[in-house]
Amino acid sequence: MRPSELLRETEHFLHAHIPLTRAMEVHVESFDEDALTLTAPLAANHNHRGTAFGGSLAALAMLAGYSLLWLELDDREVHIVIRESQMQFRRPVTGTIRAVCRRPDSASLMSFKEQLAEKGKARIQLETTIAAGGEIAVAFTGTYVAKR
Amino acid sequence: MRPSELLRETEHFLHAHIPLTRAMEVHVESFDEDALTLTAPLAANHNHRGTAFGGSLAALAMLAGYSLLWLELDDREVHIVIRESQMQFRRPVTGTIRAVCRRPDSASLMSFKEQLAEKGKARIQLETTIAAGGEIAVAFTGTYVAKR
Repeated sequence: MRPSELLRETEHFLHAHIPLTRAMEVHVESFDEDALTLTAPLAANHNHRGTAFGGSLAALAMLAGYSLLWLELDDREVHIVIRESQMQFRRPVTGTIRAVCRRPDSASLMSFKEQLAEKGKARIQLETTIAAGGEIAVAFTGTYVAKR
Repeated sequence: MRPSELLRETEHFLHAHIPLTRAMEVHVESFDEDALTLTAPLAANHNHRGTAFGGSLAALAMLAGYSLLWLELDDREVHIVIRESQMQFRRPVTGTIRAVCRRPDSASLMSFKEQLAEKGKARIQLETTIAAGGEIAVAFTGTYVAKR
């Protein structure tokens, strides 16, 4: 599958199976060796002050890590869940929400995949940020568990 | 205003100003001396496995704390934002999502209100839980800041 098709297919999967991602108008923007990026427009995700709703920021950050693992593992027999998260909300997000989940280094990813293959279960910590005005507005750390 | 009207007004405010709360079908269920409770139906908030979407759990938990402070302070000149959060996802939520934000003890609440009155700014930590099958499924701790 071509990369652009893979992104469209992932977005379609989210919209088809997780209704809130349709309401949020989540878009799978890119996935490369550095990061996976999801976006969501402010119009569907604002709060009463016209800035991004904290719940939308949390949901999009969480989904970015989930989507990265889903694409990285590329195995529909694997279930991925979030176990823990920490978030810092440093400044308001005043435009399109863009959640960037950094791809873990190769060694961490390899060890995660090996553990999953050997034990049928593995956990990994992922970092996602959302920027505003060139600075980090939201920092999200999520611990995800994959199970076969 | 009668208590039931206050809850309906709060729900109306959320739906009118935060579009995602409409999509989530957030309902303000109760507010008493012990806690504030928000609910959201699974149908609008499920994931691809038919259990509650982590993003909906995060958004509802965060909103519960926000709504508690909004009702507690009862002052539209005060802006409330979330600064930090930690969440644990212990087990899947398989029915209506019910987020219960415990009311802080009187001394903490008093000190928060005094600080807000004196300095125009105050912070407080709130605990919200979501149960499933009689056990805690999700534990959320949020640090909120109120500013006049």
